[in-house]
Amino acid sequence: MRDVAVIGTGMTKWGELWEKSLRTIFVETALLAMKDAGVDRIDSMYVGSMSSGLFTGQEHIASLLADYLGQTPVPATRVETACASGGLAFRLGLMEVASGMSDIVLVGGIEKMTDVNGYEATYALGTAADQEYEGYHGITFPGLYALIARAHMEKYGTTREQLAMVAVKNHRNGAKNPLAQFPFEVTIEDVLNSVMVADPLRILDCSPITDGAAAAIICPAEMAKEMGKPVVKIIGSGHATDRIALSSRQDVTWLEATYQAGKKAYEMAGKGPDEIDVLEVHDCFTIAEICVMEALGIVEKGQGGRAVEEGLTSLEGKIPVNASGGLKSKGHPVGATGVAQIVEICKQLRGEVGDRQVKNARIGMTQNMGGSGGSTVVHIFERE
Amino acid sequence: MRDVAVIGTGMTKWGELWEKSLRTIFVETALLAMKDAGVDRIDSMYVGSMSSGLFTGQEHIASLLADYLGQTPVPATRVETACASGGLAFRLGLMEVASGMSDIVLVGGIEKMTDVNGYEATYALGTAADQEYEGYHGITFPGLYALIARAHMEKYGTTREQLAMVAVKNHRNGAKNPLAQFPFEVTIEDVLNSVMVADPLRILDCSPITDGAAAAIICPAEMAKEMGKPVVKIIGSGHATDRIALSSRQDVTWLEATYQAGKKAYEMAGKGPDEIDVLEVHDCFTIAEICVMEALGIVEKGQGGRAVEEGLTSLEGKIPVNASGGLKSKGHPVGATGVAQIVEICKQLRGEVGDRQVKNARIGMTQNMGGSGGSTVVHIFERE
Repeated sequence: MRDVAVIGTGMTKWGELWEKSLRTIFVETALLAMKDAGVDRIDSMYVGSMSSGLFTGQEHIASLLADYLGQTPVPATRVETACASGGLAFRLGLMEVASGMSDIVLVGGIEKMTDVNGYEATYALGTAADQEYEGYHGITFPGLYALIARAHMEKYGTTREQLAMVAVKNHRNGAKNPLAQFPFEVTIEDVLNSVMVADPLRILDCSPITDGAAAAIICPAEMAKEMGKPVVKIIGSGHATDRIALSSRQDVTWLEATYQAGKKAYEMAGKGPDEIDVLEVHDCFTIAEICVMEALGIVEKGQGGRAVEEGLTSLEGKIPVNASGGLKSKGHPVGATGVAQIVEICKQLRGEVGDRQVKNARIGMTQNMGGSGGSTVVHIFERE
Repeated sequence: MRDVAVIGTGMTKWGELWEKSLRTIFVETALLAMKDAGVDRIDSMYVGSMSSGLFTGQEHIASLLADYLGQTPVPATRVETACASGGLAFRLGLMEVASGMSDIVLVGGIEKMTDVNGYEATYALGTAADQEYEGYHGITFPGLYALIARAHMEKYGTTREQLAMVAVKNHRNGAKNPLAQFPFEVTIEDVLNSVMVADPLRILDCSPITDGAAAAIICPAEMAKEMGKPVVKIIGSGHATDRIALSSRQDVTWLEATYQAGKKAYEMAGKGPDEIDVLEVHDCFTIAEICVMEALGIVEKGQGGRAVEEGLTSLEGKIPVNASGGLKSKGHPVGATGVAQIVEICKQLRGEVGDRQVKNARIGMTQNMGGSGGSTVVHIFERE
C-alpha cells in the first residue's frame, strides 16, 4: 500500500443557503479543492451524504455531481453511514489511492438540509437511529444524547456547567472561523438559559441544521512531493461499528465504535493519544465531545467533563479540540462534517488558519461519528 | 493487487415480503452466503441500497445490518448509486480484498420497496433521475425509458414486437428460477395487450417493485483454494458515469457509461465480448436490455432488437442473457439487483442452477445500471 497525502482542500461558507442547490454548493466547494491542489482532472470521486433522498428528493448524487463537475465518465461513489458519511468517503478514497488503483481522487461531503421544514429534518436525522426500536417510539436524536448525558452525569458526576463549557469553547473557536454558520461567542449563562430541547440538553448544547459541503484532493505522497505541494500524509485510518440502539449497549456512556476505530488508527499510525497536537471530534451535542475524548483515550473514563473545565482542550490547552468551532458553531451539514474536519486539520498542519492556529501542530486527528455512535471513522494526519 | 474469488452466495425468495422487515430479509440472505462460504466471521462488509431512507425511513443501514448479523465492530459501509448500488458495493469489496486490507468480506444488496404505496415508490425511484431538470417536470422512469425506446425504434427500426421478445425470453428463463418474483411465462400477445405505462412501454415491458436481498462472500483466490472451495475469480471490474439527464446526451439510445465500464472490465480481464459465455444485464425495461447489448459490444449498434428476435440471447443461443429471469421476471429490489446478478453468474459458473444452466459456462459477466444510465458497474468472472 502506498503512502497517501492530502494536496488540496475546499470549503465555502456554511449556513442556511436557500439561494443555492445541492449541486451548486458541492461544485463550488469541489472546484476550490481542485484549485488548491492545482489539478483540473480527477481519476475517481467519493461523496458522503447521509440522506440526500429525504432532504432534497435526490439520490444518485455521485453521478449527478460528477456530471455537474464536468468529470464524467470517472467512477463516482456515494457512501452513507449517517453523520459519519464524510469520514467514510475519505477512507474509501484513501483505500483506492493506497492500493494503486487510482492516483488523484476527489473526496467530498454534502448535505442540503434546509429545503425541508423542521419536522421533516428531525425525521430525516432520526433515520440514523434504529427506527423500529427507537425512532418509531418517538425518541429524537437530542433525546438519545440526553439519555447519554443523564447517565454520564449520574455515573461520573459530570455537571450541567461542564456540558455548557463545551459549547462555550467551541463557539469561542468558531468566532475565529469566517466560514462557520454561527461565528459568535456564547457564555455559560447563555447555554444554561437557552430553550430546553431534551432534558438536560438545551438548544445551545445542540449542533444546528446546516447546508454545506467540504472537499479534499488526495494522491500518492510521492506525487505530492513531485508537485511541490505541502505534504500532509494520512498515517492512520480506522472504521468501526457498534450496536445501533442505545438499549443494546452495556454502558451508554461508552462509545465502543469510537474506541475501536481510534485503536486501529493509532496502531496504523504508530502513535498514541499523547502525540496528537490538534483534534477535531464529532460534537453533535456537548455530551458527545466529552464521551469521545474518553473513548479516544485523550482523558480517562469519566474525566471528559473535568478536562473541558480545566482548559485541556481549549485553543491554548494541551490538546486543542475543535479549533474550527466544531459541529456546534461551524455547523453540521451531516454528510459534509467528516470531510470538513479533515479540511480543518490539513489547514492547521499547513499553518493556514490565522487566529485559530494551533502552534507547532504537526500531528492531527479527526473523529467522525454516525447516529448515537453506531459507526465511527477516525483518521490521523502528519505534516512532513 | 491480489486475485479475488467469490466463495459463497446467498439469495432468498423475492416478492412482496410484507411479513418481513429490511433487517430480517438481509440477515437471512447474508447468513445463507456465509453458510455457503463456510465462514462464521467477516473482516468487513459492504451493503448496496438505493433509498432505504425513502422506502423504509431507515438510513445508517450498514451499522444496523452489521449489528443484526452479530458482526460489530467490523467496518460496515453502505454505498449508493441508484439501481447500480449492489454492483458498486461488490466493486468496493473487491478493492478492499485485492488491496490486502481485508481477507473475508461480505457484500450484500437490499431493498424493501413495498412498505410504501405505489405513488411513493414511483417518487423514490424518480430520485435516480435529475430531479431538478427531469423529475420535477413530471417524468417518471418508465417515461424516460419510453423516450429511449421511441428514439431507438425511430433510428434503428427496432420493432414493438422485438421489445416484447425481451420480456418473453426473460420470463421463460425466470419460470425456471424458484426464487423469482414472477416465475411464469408470458407471450408476445400478453406483452402487447398489457396495460400501457408510458408509450410504447407497457406493464410487461417494466421490471416490478420488489422486496429482496442478495449476498456474496469474497476472499483472496489463494485462500479460496486452501479452503477447498470452487474458485470463481473476479477477473474484470469497471465503473463509469455518464451525464445524468437524457437531455444532456448526444444520443439517448447509446449508454456511454455502460460502454466505458465494459471497456475497463474487458481490458482488466484481457477478454472480449466474444469470450463471454453467460451474461446478466440490467433489463429494468425491455429497451434497456437491447441498448446494453449494443454498448457492451455483444451486438453492433442498432442490432439489439434483431439479436433478441434471432435467439442470440436465449438460453440455447450463442450468448444467453439473463438466464436468471432478469430484473423483469426475477424482480428488481433496486439495491439488491447488482449483487443478485453476481449470485446468478457464480452459480452458473459452478453449475448449480438446474433447468436454466448454460452449458460449458466458464466466463460470465454482469452489467448493473443506475438511473437511465448515469452510472454503470460491470464485472467479469472466470471459473478456474
